[in-house]
Amino acid sequence: MSRYWTEKVKNIKPYVPGEQPKDRAYVKLNTNENPYPPSPKVQDAIRSATDETLRLYPDPESGALCESIAAHFGLKKKNVFIGNGSDELLAFCFPAFFEPAGKPILFAEITYSFYPVYADFFGVAYRLIPVDENFNVSVDGYFSENGGILVANPNAPTGKGLTLEIVETIVGRNPESVVILDEAYIDFGGTTAAGLIPRYPNLLVVRTLSKSYSLAGLRVGFALGHEDLIEGLARVRDSINSYTVDRLAQAGARAALEDDAYFQETRSKIVKTRDRVSQALTSQGFRVIPSDANFVFISHPSMPARSLFAGLREKGVLVRYFDKPKIDQYLRVTIGTDDDMDRFLKAVEEICRS
Amino acid sequence: MSRYWTEKVKNIKPYVPGEQPKDRAYVKLNTNENPYPPSPKVQDAIRSATDETLRLYPDPESGALCESIAAHFGLKKKNVFIGNGSDELLAFCFPAFFEPAGKPILFAEITYSFYPVYADFFGVAYRLIPVDENFNVSVDGYFSENGGILVANPNAPTGKGLTLEIVETIVGRNPESVVILDEAYIDFGGTTAAGLIPRYPNLLVVRTLSKSYSLAGLRVGFALGHEDLIEGLARVRDSINSYTVDRLAQAGARAALEDDAYFQETRSKIVKTRDRVSQALTSQGFRVIPSDANFVFISHPSMPARSLFAGLREKGVLVRYFDKPKIDQYLRVTIGTDDDMDRFLKAVEEICRS
Repeated sequence: MSRYWTEKVKNIKPYVPGEQPKDRAYVKLNTNENPYPPSPKVQDAIRSATDETLRLYPDPESGALCESIAAHFGLKKKNVFIGNGSDELLAFCFPAFFEPAGKPILFAEITYSFYPVYADFFGVAYRLIPVDENFNVSVDGYFSENGGILVANPNAPTGKGLTLEIVETIVGRNPESVVILDEAYIDFGGTTAAGLIPRYPNLLVVRTLSKSYSLAGLRVGFALGHEDLIEGLARVRDSINSYTVDRLAQAGARAALEDDAYFQETRSKIVKTRDRVSQALTSQGFRVIPSDANFVFISHPSMPARSLFAGLREKGVLVRYFDKPKIDQYLRVTIGTDDDMDRFLKAVEEICRS
Repeated sequence: MSRYWTEKVKNIKPYVPGEQPKDRAYVKLNTNENPYPPSPKVQDAIRSATDETLRLYPDPESGALCESIAAHFGLKKKNVFIGNGSDELLAFCFPAFFEPAGKPILFAEITYSFYPVYADFFGVAYRLIPVDENFNVSVDGYFSENGGILVANPNAPTGKGLTLEIVETIVGRNPESVVILDEAYIDFGGTTAAGLIPRYPNLLVVRTLSKSYSLAGLRVGFALGHEDLIEGLARVRDSINSYTVDRLAQAGARAALEDDAYFQETRSKIVKTRDRVSQALTSQGFRVIPSDANFVFISHPSMPARSLFAGLREKGVLVRYFDKPKIDQYLRVTIGTDDDMDRFLKAVEEICRS
């Protein structure tokens, strides 16, 4: 605490990202990174872009990348906005679309833990939509009066997806609010809402290349929506930092999106491994929430989650534990390679047996 | 204007960066980029970092880069904070250190035009310190009551520097306020205030690698200050986006800082070219404000700045024109290579003669 901090900064509880350990080599299943490297074409594109033009500012609009993404989703360039990861895009949504001192915005009681951090930081009130014991969100909650809606689909850290029909109902029944659909994990299950954009001017779909495109280290996300929403995001960006996505990130992201064969291959492998691991954990007596994401959310009937977390860490396996009501008996485990997961399953078995 | 925008976003006037033209090849002297490529070691470092670890999140603290910078300035790692360009750092300073509805912060009447944009966006009141007809800032203005101080040294777009003695007086006489020293251009003239940091807990020095290190395309800036100020910035970052500087940017920035010989060589060349161009323009009848930066601020007694700007553009030379009171008869011209500047000088001569 410093006397030079503002009241806001004294009082906020910042987001704490999953550990990036440096002390030893772990099987790292704690931050939902992709276990497969990015496409070799990404590396080629970055190496080609590493030239003397680094002395020049990047295109602030990431125009070429917007065009690739627009083509990929059958949208127009003006419907695409590029950000430094989807976290930056979500942050920009708050001052752009959610009125401080307005009606509360809505998001699920159990969801991405950055949402309440953004809300507190930007002074936006929020109301939590309850989830039941199976982590299903009470969708009816989204039909009450609100100043905006934020839905992670699939949800984190549970992995629970919503059908496109339900998503469309939420968007359609809230024509006065901007509905942000955080699709960070959509490529591992479920159906994107991107196709709804031409019909719903209040829908913004937020995506990242960090997970399904293996590019967490490059910091690229994108938002898809009506051009007015895109312009709102640009106005916020240009009040903070005009150039948030560097030249190499723009080049690498474009190459990633254009190598669809590689993308399909790696995401299929992850889905296959996820289903195998879910079955193995179920056989070991775990409760495994059916997942549409690249992680599983699991609980053991007799082994406290905190102990399992600590035991796994000792054995060189990092997973994520949230010390929060309703989920403090669960662990979120990222799906790694088959080898990673065999080491994880072996470690789990040893801990539960001992 | 969209009905989905917040009142704030409807009313803000975002910053407009200098044009990044795509229509033709220009002699680009409009955004203070460095005309020389980054050190070859930067390119090597980026190529080496372009590997399968791109699938992993970057170190959110950019620890290795912080260590390089700390060593460079004789400070400790805890005194360094890395950002996505100095613009992001300046933006973070507002919610971290300047109280909305508090006393107004102070900055010069003529200075970097992003400052009032940040202030409006983050709801911070400000009072402008007048500059005289020679663009000297009335330093006494900084001794009045305030909620914070923001000084660009050298100033933009004038290029006017302050001595270290004056800077220290401003910092020392405002122990209750955070004084942000924006040293984006300091490597081209003047003395950094980084050496004052151990004695002044209210001083934050903000720097960029975009100008003197030829890395505008990579998006890296850093702040130096007391560890409490650094922690304040981290709290803001972790309320918006935990990872704003990607793996390649961290690697490239480190290599740039470590190649001091290259840095000294390129900045000396720019200073030499600046002095030659200043003399040539003076001979052509221009008023040239003595510059400590990598640009010159110039005015012609008979040729309106706007016409000169347009004439230069037509001849393939881009410079920056600000349509604002007190400076609308001036052009800001980035110092390029000697060849660039010869083309610029020739174009100026042709326009003024015709």
